[in-house]
Amino acid sequence: MAVSMDDDVPLILTLDESGSNTSAPNEQLDREDLPNENGGSYDIVNDVSSPATGDYHSQQRSARHNWEMNYQEAAIYLQEGENNDKFFTHPKNAKALAAYLFVHNHLFYLMELITALLLLLLSLCEAPAVPILRLGIYIHATLELFALVVVVFELSMKMRWMGFYTYIRHKRTMVKTCVLLVQFVEAIVVLVRQTSHVRITRALRCIFLVDCRYCGAVRRNLRQIFQSLPPFIDILLLLLFFMVIFAILGFYLFSSNHSDPYFNTLENSLVNLFVLLTTSNFPDVMMPSYSRNPWSCVFFIVYLSIELYFIMNLLLAVVFDTFSDIEKRKFKSLLLHKRTAIQHAYRLLVSKQRPSGISFKQFEGLMRFYKPRMCARERYLTFKALNQSNTTLVSLKDFYNFYEVVGLKWKAKRNREHWFDDLPRTAFLIFKGINILVKSRAFQYAMYTVVAVNGIWILIQTFMLQGGNFFPRDVPWSYIVFLTIYGVELLLKTTGLGPIEYLSSGWNLFDFSVTLFAFLGLLALAFNMEPFYFIVVLRPLQLLRLFKLKKRYRNVLDTMFELFPRMASLGLTLLIFYYSFAIVGMEFFSGVVYPNCCNTSTVADAYRWVNNTVGNKTVVEEGYYYLNNFDNILNSFVTLFELTVVNDWYIIMEGVTSQTSHWSRLYFMIFYIVTMVVMTIIVAFILEAFVFRMNYTRKNQGSEEDNGIVLEKEISKEEMAGVIELYRRNCAASEIAPLLKVIAQMDKYEQTSMLFLGWRSRTKSDLSMKMYEEEIQEWYEEHSRKEEYQWQEDVFPSGNRMLSSGLRQRSQTVT
Amino acid sequence: MAVSMDDDVPLILTLDESGSNTSAPNEQLDREDLPNENGGSYDIVNDVSSPATGDYHSQQRSARHNWEMNYQEAAIYLQEGENNDKFFTHPKNAKALAAYLFVHNHLFYLMELITALLLLLLSLCEAPAVPILRLGIYIHATLELFALVVVVFELSMKMRWMGFYTYIRHKRTMVKTCVLLVQFVEAIVVLVRQTSHVRITRALRCIFLVDCRYCGAVRRNLRQIFQSLPPFIDILLLLLFFMVIFAILGFYLFSSNHSDPYFNTLENSLVNLFVLLTTSNFPDVMMPSYSRNPWSCVFFIVYLSIELYFIMNLLLAVVFDTFSDIEKRKFKSLLLHKRTAIQHAYRLLVSKQRPSGISFKQFEGLMRFYKPRMCARERYLTFKALNQSNTTLVSLKDFYNFYEVVGLKWKAKRNREHWFDDLPRTAFLIFKGINILVKSRAFQYAMYTVVAVNGIWILIQTFMLQGGNFFPRDVPWSYIVFLTIYGVELLLKTTGLGPIEYLSSGWNLFDFSVTLFAFLGLLALAFNMEPFYFIVVLRPLQLLRLFKLKKRYRNVLDTMFELFPRMASLGLTLLIFYYSFAIVGMEFFSGVVYPNCCNTSTVADAYRWVNNTVGNKTVVEEGYYYLNNFDNILNSFVTLFELTVVNDWYIIMEGVTSQTSHWSRLYFMIFYIVTMVVMTIIVAFILEAFVFRMNYTRKNQGSEEDNGIVLEKEISKEEMAGVIELYRRNCAASEIAPLLKVIAQMDKYEQTSMLFLGWRSRTKSDLSMKMYEEEIQEWYEEHSRKEEYQWQEDVFPSGNRMLSSGLRQRSQTVT
Repeated sequence: MAVSMDDDVPLILTLDESGSNTSAPNEQLDREDLPNENGGSYDIVNDVSSPATGDYHSQQRSARHNWEMNYQEAAIYLQEGENNDKFFTHPKNAKALAAYLFVHNHLFYLMELITALLLLLLSLCEAPAVPILRLGIYIHATLELFALVVVVFELSMKMRWMGFYTYIRHKRTMVKTCVLLVQFVEAIVVLVRQTSHVRITRALRCIFLVDCRYCGAVRRNLRQIFQSLPPFIDILLLLLFFMVIFAILGFYLFSSNHSDPYFNTLENSLVNLFVLLTTSNFPDVMMPSYSRNPWSCVFFIVYLSIELYFIMNLLLAVVFDTFSDIEKRKFKSLLLHKRTAIQHAYRLLVSKQRPSGISFKQFEGLMRFYKPRMCARERYLTFKALNQSNTTLVSLKDFYNFYEVVGLKWKAKRNREHWFDDLPRTAFLIFKGINILVKSRAFQYAMYTVVAVNGIWILIQTFMLQGGNFFPRDVPWSYIVFLTIYGVELLLKTTGLGPIEYLSSGWNLFDFSVTLFAFLGLLALAFNMEPFYFIVVLRPLQLLRLFKLKKRYRNVLDTMFELFPRMASLGLTLLIFYYSFAIVGMEFFSGVVYPNCCNTSTVADAYRWVNNTVGNKTVVEEGYYYLNNFDNILNSFVTLFELTVVNDWYIIMEGVTSQTSHWSRLYFMIFYIVTMVVMTIIVAFILEAFVFRMNYTRKNQGSEEDNGIVLEKEISKEEMAGVIELYRRNCAASEIAPLLKVIAQMDKYEQTSMLFLGWRSRTKSDLSMKMYEEEIQEWYEEHSRKEEYQWQEDVFPSGNRMLSSGLRQRSQTVT
Repeated sequence: MAVSMDDDVPLILTLDESGSNTSAPNEQLDREDLPNENGGSYDIVNDVSSPATGDYHSQQRSARHNWEMNYQEAAIYLQEGENNDKFFTHPKNAKALAAYLFVHNHLFYLMELITALLLLLLSLCEAPAVPILRLGIYIHATLELFALVVVVFELSMKMRWMGFYTYIRHKRTMVKTCVLLVQFVEAIVVLVRQTSHVRITRALRCIFLVDCRYCGAVRRNLRQIFQSLPPFIDILLLLLFFMVIFAILGFYLFSSNHSDPYFNTLENSLVNLFVLLTTSNFPDVMMPSYSRNPWSCVFFIVYLSIELYFIMNLLLAVVFDTFSDIEKRKFKSLLLHKRTAIQHAYRLLVSKQRPSGISFKQFEGLMRFYKPRMCARERYLTFKALNQSNTTLVSLKDFYNFYEVVGLKWKAKRNREHWFDDLPRTAFLIFKGINILVKSRAFQYAMYTVVAVNGIWILIQTFMLQGGNFFPRDVPWSYIVFLTIYGVELLLKTTGLGPIEYLSSGWNLFDFSVTLFAFLGLLALAFNMEPFYFIVVLRPLQLLRLFKLKKRYRNVLDTMFELFPRMASLGLTLLIFYYSFAIVGMEFFSGVVYPNCCNTSTVADAYRWVNNTVGNKTVVEEGYYYLNNFDNILNSFVTLFELTVVNDWYIIMEGVTSQTSHWSRLYFMIFYIVTMVVMTIIVAFILEAFVFRMNYTRKNQGSEEDNGIVLEKEISKEEMAGVIELYRRNCAASEIAPLLKVIAQMDKYEQTSMLFLGWRSRTKSDLSMKMYEEEIQEWYEEHSRKEEYQWQEDVFPSGNRMLSSGLRQRSQTVT
């Protein structure tokens, strides 16, 4: 990612002219391996500019230069594989490479994100603004123009990287460009006219956020939503079809009843059946006809049974089915994409002299570009972990594990079991005692009991309070007692386990923060600080600890934590839809709803605000619904959330409709359908993830309690010395220091070797790997068959780079 | 099933004394096979009473008698396998057999069902009765006593069949007996006191219905619901836990706001968060705090996100997962149960002389008991279908397919392609032309177009009507035109395809009935018959035909039809829960809700009924909710349905609560949780069934359009003659007649053999068989290993019946 942070990077660009592409085998260069072939993309420039020199030093330099370029390109391939970037956007020459490096960079990503957020947040200050954030038209239009100019700059850099033809082939970027143009024109128009017009196109601003590198998950979600749409729409049509039939039926059956306002016209009939689908008006819509003829309830029961209980569930089933299918296909394509990326990188890393694998030197060169911040020790450990045959070279088959291994965090295996092992005898015994105590079951269950008693105590105490908010002015004794117990537990655990081991468990971290919060609450109570009083109410959260007790809950909570990133990205996706709808809503409906606005409509009561004087007391009768408006973007978001929950949403719809036209209903209905799509997909996602995990647990019942991927590697002193030697020849002293420290540590404990542990948390991809074990082999075979044909045409469209036949054969035998 | 319809049945009982259990091999009886062993259960009686006679005729008679008993017991085993009756209730002696035959009988089943329904329907006439059905206490109490006496009779018959010890080991029957006792005592108390007391136990009456033989599906559903409960309850506790925490939090945060009635006490806080979980009070519960501080919406958004969008979906996921698992286990146990039943039956059917299989004679004997109404031709075809090795004997391996084959309906393959093949040349050509026409794509699409135009026409016409119910007094011309087109289509199709082929397609049947209804509607319009006018509104249903067009819809509709029986049984299960709750509701809440009843509560508006006189017009302001009451069982059902839909259910709850005590809320909350369980299971069921089918379709993409199980068997003339010969020796002429007809038909068409087609619709079990193909083999192996140990102990607890070791070995080598 952050390739530019390495000193070597700019060299390649400046060396273009002096570099040479001599690639003939040279017996004199025995100490310098030569790249297997001149496969890198960036020699195209060199082809033209390099003078052919026979000088030894120049050749050595040029070989080293070739290596550097190959390292960089291999690192880029691996990054593309990791990020699922298509290879047709792979930088094709040195100019493109410079742009690529500029664009793929956390600073640039941050700039992208900030401009996108700025553009989105502008709607807080524009026309129907949040009162305290209102800005003048000049200010917000100028800000907008500034942000748009930054976006133009970003896009031009991207065009430089991709080249014009690739740029216009890249759909997402093209859409972004068009939106950018429209926004630009509109922003200028606003500045010129000095007044905002109806700018619905602001709803498209989200595309700037969606296009950010950091929002890859949102893009994936959106793709998944669009892929699930066709079956969804089919069932939706079935749903609407039945709705129309029942609307006609309802109209014929109930329109003769003049006290029934729900079915007096076909339009009303349709709208009310649509609302009935969400159950939002349920008993009410039935009541007038029910009071006339009790048997009319059959109509509604049949309608709800078919539409709500059958077709809606069918919808979920169809989406769930499509979703699981898409998940599997996505996993497959990602896996194969990564595999191709690894093959590309491997091709660039093998040397002419040793074509059967990658040596550590080459691997080290790659890692300098791929993960510049990784220290030398970790690089060597990663290499060792990849190298399953224990030779000096990593074969392609071993290299296929690159992505699984590169994420491991390495840690020397402790020689001491506890943190207090080095302390004097008496202290050791005391701490050892504490350690045994806090690890005992009795202690755990005692704590659970305390927590349970505390929970019940809080419940009873709160129940006793009854009416009103009388926070005790004095600190209650129970609070102090429980807090003391928790404090003692915390102290015991920290001393017994050592702070690092204590805080490495998520549950302990939770205990710690809750106790801390409770302590802050105590302070707030003691010093009568009003604004902090709400911390006290966090106390009951401690009860969550009780859920550690049962295995199913641990399972559920683990799944919850695993799901969290995806859930968050789904939530963000929903928010993006919200944003678009909020903008449209504000443009059309801002200011139309206010107290007593809708006295002519059927929902007048909900919008009423009456100040009755009964006797000498003023009684305010409030319907409150005027608060659910589109007056600024924050209000709109709350209103849209209320529409998402769908209860009583028709009151909001009818209120707005009575003040505008009945076409407004379209807005609300479309919003309902869109949220229904997203919500169904969220449900399908939770279902899929959970069922998947359950199946996984069922399949691997033996190895259940492992909570991550762990790898063990031993390094001997001699190996270490070799690595240090290698580094000494090439690199700065700063890289050698940690290696020397390892040697010193070995000396201290008089070991000839040292054990390292690599750990990373398990991802969905790891689970999928295990679930589809058998199928994966089939995919690989199928893929390597296809490769045969596509290798040259797709990946190397220029056709002037031939794979060495040896490598191609090898990749076949391996896969 | 209807074993008693055969003349042979009573013979066994009366022959008990004269029968003999001589089972030694007898060379003289060469024409009569001897049962392989004296394995039947009913010889226990014989053991005591039979005199040992050496007489030839007596021996032959006794052998035949032994055979008859074996046939009957084998048929009973097969029935037990089919109905999933446990073998420990297998009738053990002749007395038990008589009772078994009495009890397993459609007449008896009907009696069971009718008494159960009578008991349930009594609640229409008891105390809070439906007005027009009210009966005097004497009458309904006597009716109840009568029904209960019938139940006592039924139970005593069952006890006779099972024996006392088995009877008290059978849980369901024991529960039923207890409920019966309570009901009996209460009915007598009512008769004596001449007034109804609070009879909540009436809610238990459903058990009489659940225990009916015809309600097997309901029992299975209930079992599945109970099996899904443990994980469900776990997640429910998590849900309630968060609810309590948020209730405490909400109380602390919002109770200071005096205009907020939702959080002023902890109890209110809890109740309102419970209602919020159903979203029923959503924007309202937020409004008072939201109007005070806009940021308070965060509390509600977080609560809903956690509880509604996360944990509730988790609940579905967990139930879905458990459900799929249970479905698979259930399928497995059913499969193995059937297999065991087949093994038992096989053991009773093989003869000493030919121990390697069942001959047709034995099979025919079995079928006479198992399916008395099956004709001789079908019996022979079933035998042929089972016999895959084409020898004269059916081996155990072949016999394992018994249940798959026995359901096939056999039909001679037609020699003529069309019904009009025998008509004169001219007529033939005309009909042939029509046949080609109606089968052409052009005709089909023309009809679809007509249907679509008709649909749009109806929509526009209805839309034009606007306000009010003015049914045209004249028949509109468009109606006549479309009906004529449909009529012509119907005529063409019937003549072109022949009425039998036409009506054999479900879609054609649908077309036919819709057209018929439309015609009735026309008559209704023409003769101005008011009560029939609603038939006209069925017209739009014709549009359903359009859904034939797309494959996904055909798939969905097919799944719908396949699901229908299970859906119906789930619906019935829900109704049984409804019944219990309705009884409890009526006992506690009947008559508490009436117009203007709840003026002191927060939901007063919904119960208001005011007769305002504005000017000279009377305007009735109705809240209508007083209609949602528990005044009689029908009203209760409607109210409970409204509670199931959960929208605005809190209005009903608060109305009742304000008139009774706040403990009434428990009733409503428990009802919500129960329906949530059932509804979640219904959703899980639809999901499971649909996903299962989709996976099946994906797995068998080649053989997709087959709509049932089809088998072809050819019978030669000689075989037929042999079968006739066999029947002639044993049976009445009535059985031979259809066989002779087949021979006559062969002669007519001058064939030496005839082809028969066996067809049945595909069941879930067939799908499962294909889905779990690989696992099934494992199950079988595991099962046959277990059998080794359990065979004797479990199935034959008396231990006096040894399996011939030969058979046991065979069953092992086969499986």
